[in-house]
Amino acid sequence: MTDVRIAGVGLTKFGSHPERTGRDLFAEAALAAREDAGVSRDDYEEIFYGNFMGELAEKQGHQGPVMAEAAGLDCPATRYEQACASAGVAFRQAVATIRSGAADVVLAGGMERMNNLGTAEVTQSLAIAADELFEVRAGVTFPGAYALMARAYFDAFGGDSEDLAHVAVKNHANAMQNDYAQFHREITVDDALESPIVADPLSLYDACPITDGASAVVLVSDDYAERHGLDAPVSVTGSGQGGDKAALQDRPHLARTPAATKAADAAYADAGIGPDDVDVAEVHDCFTIAEVLALESLGLYDHGEGVGAAARGETTRDGDLPVNLSGGLKAKGHPVGATGTAQVVEMTKLLRGDHGNSDAVPDARVGVTHNAGGTVASAVVHVLEVDR
Amino acid sequence: MTDVRIAGVGLTKFGSHPERTGRDLFAEAALAAREDAGVSRDDYEEIFYGNFMGELAEKQGHQGPVMAEAAGLDCPATRYEQACASAGVAFRQAVATIRSGAADVVLAGGMERMNNLGTAEVTQSLAIAADELFEVRAGVTFPGAYALMARAYFDAFGGDSEDLAHVAVKNHANAMQNDYAQFHREITVDDALESPIVADPLSLYDACPITDGASAVVLVSDDYAERHGLDAPVSVTGSGQGGDKAALQDRPHLARTPAATKAADAAYADAGIGPDDVDVAEVHDCFTIAEVLALESLGLYDHGEGVGAAARGETTRDGDLPVNLSGGLKAKGHPVGATGTAQVVEMTKLLRGDHGNSDAVPDARVGVTHNAGGTVASAVVHVLEVDR
Repeated sequence: MTDVRIAGVGLTKFGSHPERTGRDLFAEAALAAREDAGVSRDDYEEIFYGNFMGELAEKQGHQGPVMAEAAGLDCPATRYEQACASAGVAFRQAVATIRSGAADVVLAGGMERMNNLGTAEVTQSLAIAADELFEVRAGVTFPGAYALMARAYFDAFGGDSEDLAHVAVKNHANAMQNDYAQFHREITVDDALESPIVADPLSLYDACPITDGASAVVLVSDDYAERHGLDAPVSVTGSGQGGDKAALQDRPHLARTPAATKAADAAYADAGIGPDDVDVAEVHDCFTIAEVLALESLGLYDHGEGVGAAARGETTRDGDLPVNLSGGLKAKGHPVGATGTAQVVEMTKLLRGDHGNSDAVPDARVGVTHNAGGTVASAVVHVLEVDR
Repeated sequence: MTDVRIAGVGLTKFGSHPERTGRDLFAEAALAAREDAGVSRDDYEEIFYGNFMGELAEKQGHQGPVMAEAAGLDCPATRYEQACASAGVAFRQAVATIRSGAADVVLAGGMERMNNLGTAEVTQSLAIAADELFEVRAGVTFPGAYALMARAYFDAFGGDSEDLAHVAVKNHANAMQNDYAQFHREITVDDALESPIVADPLSLYDACPITDGASAVVLVSDDYAERHGLDAPVSVTGSGQGGDKAALQDRPHLARTPAATKAADAAYADAGIGPDDVDVAEVHDCFTIAEVLALESLGLYDHGEGVGAAARGETTRDGDLPVNLSGGLKAKGHPVGATGTAQVVEMTKLLRGDHGNSDAVPDARVGVTHNAGGTVASAVVHVLEVDR
């Protein structure tokens, strides 16, 4: 099977850009990735593009061709929609396409605009990622759904809001060294605990913000990288996807996310590694509890052990297994359809040594990214390894 | 590279099902395909699902997991959105995934609900497949856009409304033998010419109807088919995708669809065939002029020659190259996100000999399907071949 290498990565600044169009945002990220890769424009063969709610935010469906033009590329482009895992599944198919031998050079990325909508409208728009018949009509929104999962976790395994506050504190601290992050503001555990309740037991600092932004990654076959002498030290060695029932009510356990376990197991097997080999991780912390569930589903912690990881300093910048050095969705921001490839951008830079937090993981060889859709009804995990 | 075989196909009746949910429609098609395939439920590894406007029609995004449950399968499912080519690109990635060796058994399909919306709301919802900034704001809808293309065609190459009427008459006649078709009503050239103008020069019978429906295809590796002794005589031997500028104003020629040419050239090269080898075709006739443009873009006719093909009897049931024996989008119906795989279902049955119109092509060996998005800003072409 062809090895897949990451030749270039690009991001916009994450934050509030209500005055910019989606195509403008994606153009910036795609052109940055193209410049970073240094690959001839004519060699791009296909674009894999993630977007969640363009129909609602910009009245623009069929964004593939629109974004190909924005990226300045004359090749087919396909849009993937998988809620918050949209760019993750796009990236996965980009990897599969190179591995199949059908292409040598592709671009994967994603974009989301959210701040042009009001807060209530954004919450309602995000809710279409839940089960319309069995959740949304009953009044479920995502803060409420993740609050249910947090409550179930506390009941099953212990832990409390202070443990979750440490996750937020950690991720805000990590974002200080990330120029592209939405927030550059350190917070304390007391700040988090004293913030307004959003959905008990989750408060404001347990939730990621509303974010506009785009991300892009240039992927090439090993053979192409060699032939063209590209500086592309990071490879994608493992890819996995998992699925679960859309509605929480149909699942046996609210404090576990087996879709992520299936995705991780598949990605580890694909890469020929185990969770003990992971040096650094970017996980889908749309809420602080989601980071905890991810750590456990990925086999990085046993069930019940993940909740205290940040408080114990194990997943912080100076810990043994730094998690979300980018700042995570919590502090870097979460432009939904762009997050999956944004995680790959951050991990690539962390492993290459050109990230603001690379000094925290100077010897890291294996990184894992975990991107989730809805209440982890969808999950995508990738293993990235750097030549050292 | 692994050969890909079609082990089973399924459809709902196309038509107006405003009282049925999308998951109900997809369940029917998927279960029919699963029954036709006779593959063990546990062997399904991934679902590739096309849907265009579920956010607007059912307030349901993230349909992958919802549809996996509807199909009765416990495997990851990804939603593809590429306007009217949504199921076409989903099918293409299903083929690529089997070829890459990542899976042996997958299900590809699509679903669309439209009739629960009013006619004006459907037209506005469909318009999100056009360029929002440069077309929709200027008042372009799809009947208007295809009318511009028809007018440009007549100006560049000749032909007239009567030629287009013959396309509608042909496709209505073909649908008479298709139990799943929305219309079972033969029409005459006069009926078509006397029908109300929708967007000059296109009248009512130049346009496909508004349709609810779903389609599904079970794909397996050659190796799996052999090991399990499956009766799967139809193979997917070629796959190609092409892209173009989203907005008509950015294209050099309104009477050509180069995205389809790129897709067809790639698919023919992949299959090792040329257009002369094609025995039967299902093409994307959302409007009668679209069938004409498809015939020419696929190299089945020279530019300017396609418009008279139906009138000359060459693409009719008894012609040398029957086109849209299913009835086409025109008379079979066009549930947009389901159409790409519905074409594959029809072609598979035509080639296997169990279609109501199989007797028109008893010796056909090579069939081509052509699925387009927007004003052919996206196109997907597949080559199917049957063992004879």
